[in-house]
Amino acid sequence: MKDPLKATTKIGFLGAGQLARMSSLEAFRFGIQVAVFSDRTENEPVQFMTPFSTSGSFESVDDMVAFARKCDVITLENEFISSEVLKKVQQKSGTPIYPSPESFALIENKLIEKQTFENAGIPVTPYKLVTSISDIEAFGETYEWPYLLKSSKGGYDGYGNKTVKNIDEAKEAFTKLGGEAGHDILAEAFVPFSKELAVQVARNETGTVVYPCCETVQKNHICVAVLSPAPIAEGYQKKAQELAVKATEAIDGKGIFAFEFFLTENGEILLNESAPRPHNSGHYTIEGCITSQFENHVRAVLGLPLGSSIMNAPAVAMINLLGTHNRPAKADKMLEALEAENGHLHVYGKVQSKIGRKMAHYTLLGDEIDKTYHQARELTKNIEI
Amino acid sequence: MKDPLKATTKIGFLGAGQLARMSSLEAFRFGIQVAVFSDRTENEPVQFMTPFSTSGSFESVDDMVAFARKCDVITLENEFISSEVLKKVQQKSGTPIYPSPESFALIENKLIEKQTFENAGIPVTPYKLVTSISDIEAFGETYEWPYLLKSSKGGYDGYGNKTVKNIDEAKEAFTKLGGEAGHDILAEAFVPFSKELAVQVARNETGTVVYPCCETVQKNHICVAVLSPAPIAEGYQKKAQELAVKATEAIDGKGIFAFEFFLTENGEILLNESAPRPHNSGHYTIEGCITSQFENHVRAVLGLPLGSSIMNAPAVAMINLLGTHNRPAKADKMLEALEAENGHLHVYGKVQSKIGRKMAHYTLLGDEIDKTYHQARELTKNIEI
Repeated sequence: MKDPLKATTKIGFLGAGQLARMSSLEAFRFGIQVAVFSDRTENEPVQFMTPFSTSGSFESVDDMVAFARKCDVITLENEFISSEVLKKVQQKSGTPIYPSPESFALIENKLIEKQTFENAGIPVTPYKLVTSISDIEAFGETYEWPYLLKSSKGGYDGYGNKTVKNIDEAKEAFTKLGGEAGHDILAEAFVPFSKELAVQVARNETGTVVYPCCETVQKNHICVAVLSPAPIAEGYQKKAQELAVKATEAIDGKGIFAFEFFLTENGEILLNESAPRPHNSGHYTIEGCITSQFENHVRAVLGLPLGSSIMNAPAVAMINLLGTHNRPAKADKMLEALEAENGHLHVYGKVQSKIGRKMAHYTLLGDEIDKTYHQARELTKNIEI
Repeated sequence: MKDPLKATTKIGFLGAGQLARMSSLEAFRFGIQVAVFSDRTENEPVQFMTPFSTSGSFESVDDMVAFARKCDVITLENEFISSEVLKKVQQKSGTPIYPSPESFALIENKLIEKQTFENAGIPVTPYKLVTSISDIEAFGETYEWPYLLKSSKGGYDGYGNKTVKNIDEAKEAFTKLGGEAGHDILAEAFVPFSKELAVQVARNETGTVVYPCCETVQKNHICVAVLSPAPIAEGYQKKAQELAVKATEAIDGKGIFAFEFFLTENGEILLNESAPRPHNSGHYTIEGCITSQFENHVRAVLGLPLGSSIMNAPAVAMINLLGTHNRPAKADKMLEALEAENGHLHVYGKVQSKIGRKMAHYTLLGDEIDKTYHQARELTKNIEI
């Protein structure tokens, strides 16, 4: 982009949640403007942060073209818009979209995603497209029950996934996920893993920056904590970082990307999921690294040189603060967390709190990862949000 | 404030420039909303960051009351509104203002400011209220020419000040500054100083946090760089910090405050100026300290516990990027600055660049202050903005 750092440069976000919100803060830091397109008319986190807020449908090319024409560059905060629609929006509006629709097309469908990364020589979890009852039965016999059935489109935080223990459960899930209606359903083997890992990569025409390999702690398929660097041998960290860079190159990614891996019990690293956007596993980088994933997101899509991902402390723990109540949003009992010397509270500005909803997060910098993680949990355990 | 961290909490800024902008980013980080009152109808930096933007006169109580009623707390980013007006706004709207109008009343007038701090036992630069030609002549004879004439109200970045070398210049300046029209004019002796220092203090009902003592480098009365910690003996740093805390207590300050000192050639530390708001001398704290002056500004006015002011690196240099052109704002030739590993660029979102106008700043973290300052200057010397 010519002259990205003009005061009139407008970066447009498709989606208005916490990821766009935290990215917007970095856009503001560079003195540029933020516009936001949401499928809700009000109360989205970024809608309180800009006078340039538009509502419409993520399926309507026309809605998004009108929005994109007012922006200098468009970026994503979710995977809800199809690459076909994005392609048309880019073409009709003339406004570039990063990550590009072409990159996104290689990962939006879980089947294509697996094939893309396999073709690039990146080990993935064993999977198969299942189209019939005999397919789902055969997969269970080959890879053992239980295994996972996944809708090939959409799905995050455990939505669109089902763990199936036997053929009856598998049949039910297959139908629920739309298999009988013709949707592509993937069977995926359960991998006996010792850790779940994640790596963020920022990439554009100026270069590639890979973040440290962190561990994600999941509970009911929702990330509850991140530890960075992951408490594993350095060789594994490096391997995951290498695979993440390779994966970004495989899709010719421009933007910020996150890759989730399994470290298996026998020491393999398998790519599990990818995201073409800032990711919950990278929230710790706001204070934890010299340049946050959000700042590098903005730098990447503007075509600016990328910032360093070196950590600011030997150990960083991030705790997701999930809704503890169904009520108008407020954060209570967070004084200890705010008083802790190296602790940083981020609240997302969602108006309504719901039990289990991602409302905020807390990052603690320290010297040793186990200790820091323990302290972070202690400091946040009483928070009501 | 009850439940400060509600998504619907609205912090209202009187003023919409870069100080309110950088404070707003921290308000957003805490998930709350920002409203802004400006005396300009458009193109103010914060007006691009919120849907809640109001224009009016800083002299109109009614304008500001209507604004304040929509906010939960009001704060300042400049000293352009009189404490009398602020008092009325607070009273009529029922919305608290921090720093309080009572605190501000003790420093808004340079004469009262000097007296307030002198009464608290804080050494200030020699001064006198001058009301006649014989007064200005006598001051020159007592303290030697040249000296400074200052309007007791308003004035920043060298505006409202005049250096006078002889009685003719003094007469002219006295008239220009409004002395003959009855405005209070202060004569202030030139202090032979070796360094200009600054200290920020955050304070509210939960406690007081004092920032490191930094050095400010001035050119034509405009701050061009800040070095932290100031390259002076630790005893002087501590003394300046003590005086800054004492000064904040003297005005019962709630919010963030900045105090500028002279370190004289014979080792005295004299208070020169104070500001009841985030200050240019504290921009380095964004990356340089665990908690920035802006975050503590927000914490202080919300009544939250204050964050640590410990530095994130042994040395931090901040360079003000003043407008190099008169043109629509854009930052050019900043690639080196962006590529530097520990460098951080902040652009203020002003739409129009003017030669000498504060458009942006650049912060570099390092190991040794002289080296870091030198590097920061090198990295920014080609920037056109």
